Amino acid sequence: MGNFAAATAVHPTDDRGLGAEIVPGWDILGNANGGYLMAILGRAALHASGRPDVVALSAEFLSPGRSGSVRLTTSPLKQGRRFDTTRVDMIGDDRLIQTGTVISGDLDAASGATLVLAERPEIPAPDQCIVIEPNEPFPPAFAGQVDMRLHPADAFTAADPTTATVRGWFRLHDDEPLDSLAVVMACDGFPPTVFNTELDVGWVPTVQMTVHVRSRPVGEWLQIQMTTSYITNGMFEADAVAWDDSGTLVAQSRQLALVPQA
Amino acid sequence: MGNFAAATAVHPTDDRGLGAEIVPGWDILGNANGGYLMAILGRAALHASGRPDVVALSAEFLSPGRSGSVRLTTSPLKQGRRFDTTRVDMIGDDRLIQTGTVISGDLDAASGATLVLAERPEIPAPDQCIVIEPNEPFPPAFAGQVDMRLHPADAFTAADPTTATVRGWFRLHDDEPLDSLAVVMACDGFPPTVFNTELDVGWVPTVQMTVHVRSRPVGEWLQIQMTTSYITNGMFEADAVAWDDSGTLVAQSRQLALVPQA
Repeated sequence: MGNFAAATAVHPTDDRGLGAEIVPGWDILGNANGGYLMAILGRAALHASGRPDVVALSAEFLSPGRSGSVRLTTSPLKQGRRFDTTRVDMIGDDRLIQTGTVISGDLDAASGATLVLAERPEIPAPDQCIVIEPNEPFPPAFAGQVDMRLHPADAFTAADPTTATVRGWFRLHDDEPLDSLAVVMACDGFPPTVFNTELDVGWVPTVQMTVHVRSRPVGEWLQIQMTTSYITNGMFEADAVAWDDSGTLVAQSRQLALVPQA
Repeated sequence: MGNFAAATAVHPTDDRGLGAEIVPGWDILGNANGGYLMAILGRAALHASGRPDVVALSAEFLSPGRSGSVRLTTSPLKQGRRFDTTRVDMIGDDRLIQTGTVISGDLDAASGATLVLAERPEIPAPDQCIVIEPNEPFPPAFAGQVDMRLHPADAFTAADPTTATVRGWFRLHDDEPLDSLAVVMACDGFPPTVFNTELDVGWVPTVQMTVHVRSRPVGEWLQIQMTTSYITNGMFEADAVAWDDSGTLVAQSRQLALVPQA
């Protein structure tokens, strides 16, 4: 089992629920990466539904996820022909860490109209980008669990402060294959877009995040683009788009996050 | 009470839940507009939390909403200093119509960093746009409940088929003031973006929709822009951005919808 699959594994518990471990090292200063926690929510939903892929996952981030055991409760909301909808709560130390609603299905069976009206941006190849290596406090420990490469033009001091853009590449270590859950995590893996503005920002807690996974990724790398257009009253959106090695759109995500007041 | 406030009103029921009426006439061919149903979910959450505004509302659309009575169950998930998080289920005829998670707060008390990195598009004034009037089957009955004006360049046969954009204006009738719930509905009120492509599309069921409300709208009109960039395997996103009369960003939304196979 790969590093990511192991770190997001769920297991049945005696009380007919599911359990998982928030593994140390998938954190930002002690709090687990939110996308990593969403991947565990997604894993629990797929376990419950028996469907192979997350199609949509919407989660609210309610308490920080500290390393250790968590319980996952799953509730089937709808069993459809094409999709199942499952509610998942993640509870640790008697606190609700995340709640999520997961639409699952078989992305390889998806068919229907295709019309792409946007261009995938060209960015330098992974070996021309900057490897994001953990160096606490920043980059955080989480960066060591995956292979993320940052576009040199988006590397903070080099970045254009009139945009809030982070572009780069994401893959798992040791040739572990990408699945829909890795895609969910990849949409929350990169450093915050707002680090590339003139705002003095240290941390940016996520309030809510929704990921739509459009296709099961093929190949090794995900190309990721994160952008923010509106920071208003201490709130901002961070939108991610992910493409696979075939150039196909794999996912879109949006999160609502906060710029804490200094 | 205004038409919108009345159509989204909730009332306590004997079993300590909430009830509401899906009012006839807020529908598209018999099924209530999804944003209208989300506004009822939001109203229930605000009733439960006591907070004035929806800040984020994420909902899954599970069954069509037919006119008639529905039950709403609310579950408090977190009571924070700034936000409450409330789960709301809408049940009618023993079917789950929508499930949603609502983050509520006081948008007028929001403060913090503001940095706007995108321009609000210029579009013709409301009286230069096309009034969307119901003319079943299209435009649907819902269009008669609100005042929507469509940018002439986005009026279907005139539209550029290399983009999937719908721009226009939204207000409530009879000077009813806009609140965060009207904003939620406005983000799902306009005709589908994909009607402006070369695809032969009749209806586009929503699977999941998330709205982030950034500020309480001031003034009479909302300027709305809806765009779609990726229609893939019969799935597409429809993103809405809403600004108020002061030019301030009021909301962003994204929905995942389907292009049913012919």
